[in-house]
Amino acid sequence: MTRKELINQIFTKKTFLCVGLDTDIKKIPEHLLKEEDPIFAFNKAIIDATAPYCVAYKPNLAFYESMGVKGWISFEKTIAYLNESYPLHFIIADAKRGDIGNTSAMYARTFFEEMSLDALTVAPYMGEDSVTPFLQYDGKWVILLALTSNKGSHDFQLTTDAEGERLFEKVLRKSQEWGNADNMMYVVGATQGKMFEDIRKVAPDHFLLVPGIGAQGGSLEEVCKYGMTKDCGLIVNSSRAIIYADKTERFAEVAGEEAQKVAKQMKTVLESIK
Amino acid sequence: MTRKELINQIFTKKTFLCVGLDTDIKKIPEHLLKEEDPIFAFNKAIIDATAPYCVAYKPNLAFYESMGVKGWISFEKTIAYLNESYPLHFIIADAKRGDIGNTSAMYARTFFEEMSLDALTVAPYMGEDSVTPFLQYDGKWVILLALTSNKGSHDFQLTTDAEGERLFEKVLRKSQEWGNADNMMYVVGATQGKMFEDIRKVAPDHFLLVPGIGAQGGSLEEVCKYGMTKDCGLIVNSSRAIIYADKTERFAEVAGEEAQKVAKQMKTVLESIK
Repeated sequence: MTRKELINQIFTKKTFLCVGLDTDIKKIPEHLLKEEDPIFAFNKAIIDATAPYCVAYKPNLAFYESMGVKGWISFEKTIAYLNESYPLHFIIADAKRGDIGNTSAMYARTFFEEMSLDALTVAPYMGEDSVTPFLQYDGKWVILLALTSNKGSHDFQLTTDAEGERLFEKVLRKSQEWGNADNMMYVVGATQGKMFEDIRKVAPDHFLLVPGIGAQGGSLEEVCKYGMTKDCGLIVNSSRAIIYADKTERFAEVAGEEAQKVAKQMKTVLESIK
Repeated sequence: MTRKELINQIFTKKTFLCVGLDTDIKKIPEHLLKEEDPIFAFNKAIIDATAPYCVAYKPNLAFYESMGVKGWISFEKTIAYLNESYPLHFIIADAKRGDIGNTSAMYARTFFEEMSLDALTVAPYMGEDSVTPFLQYDGKWVILLALTSNKGSHDFQLTTDAEGERLFEKVLRKSQEWGNADNMMYVVGATQGKMFEDIRKVAPDHFLLVPGIGAQGGSLEEVCKYGMTKDCGLIVNSSRAIIYADKTERFAEVAGEEAQKVAKQMKTVLESIK
């Protein structure tokens, strides 16, 4: 999906919500456990219920890999279902990969060619040749970790170098030598509040993927206040607060209602900028 | 595997070689393609031929994931075979994972509990809570990326902060607040040469996992000169130079010969320190 198509989806549907498919067999409603593939059954129901209220889906690979081969089957079925039934949604594999060049190239083939995903999250620690193999595909995106939502983000990401630049700022600046606002986004945690102002100084036009509202405690209002651009420039993810809002047979319906609530707030914000 | 057991293996077998199982369906001998699971058939033959000359195996997950579900099956079979037939070898999943705490905890369960691997490579960018979930298992190891073998290692890992500390040094120092030389190692590329001296100033006792000899051009001699400790302190990995040394029906035999050559050099070095 190109940047133009993504922006178009956001302003047409009036939402920039991403639903995180962090599906955990221990947290899904019990009645699904009798299904042949409970994880896929859960995802399919959640997707059908939330699709009108979001522009993106983000399965976190860890949840699928933790189930071994079975988990990979559920993951591939979920992606195939999204590609077939919801081709206008932006699909992100939250994989946080990053390896030497030839290995990153293999990951790129898997996720972009074989699975037709739109984007992949990548860790920046190994530098340029671990990132650029993902930038060789038209309409595909690298979403580079910049300033994450967790407590540990303070350990290295905020380290200030001899020139006064913090590591996350260096990641933002340096990576713009490799890609641009048409093929690269950044992960910035919703819990980072006013730091979005600093992010926008270095990356004024890039889309930001923002996890951390809901269960992790970030505020949508603050994220929009400091991070939004004229093109929206934000994809805000919510996982647990939506997909586990209810554990009964009504789980999908309730997930849809929760997604709709967030989308309603987003609509108000979007209407204020266009 | 505990540190003591690992050191014991190294000095008993007189080798600190790790064979990297970076198995690529496009590079294995053609006659294996008629096997039901060519990747596993290749790995099994390579393992049987090289086991006397190495103390560790390191499959890089990317190579398996790139084949989707099939690849995961080959990976799980390889790990099961190693656990069953070579329980004294140290098994590393080269996965370069690292995510927020609850997600890292899921990865830890998968790799340590379900698969009985000994160690997992982890990327440090997300800090403490992305690493500590892996440190909760006796006899299991985190191998944290410190100074990698690739060109991109210069982009961020060498950044000097306001106090004159480079990022890789901060990773080495800070992570010692979370773990110790009994449950943590570091990845340092063989291509880093004299930098091993600087590594040893901050991490004098930790084992280092050293990729990059062979195809990537690092020198075993230099690594030993600057990186070795009285306990050896090194696990040196070679992948392509061993596993793809020959593409005929003799591939496993030749891989064994190549591993033996490296082990012979290692024996000389080890005898010089004990």
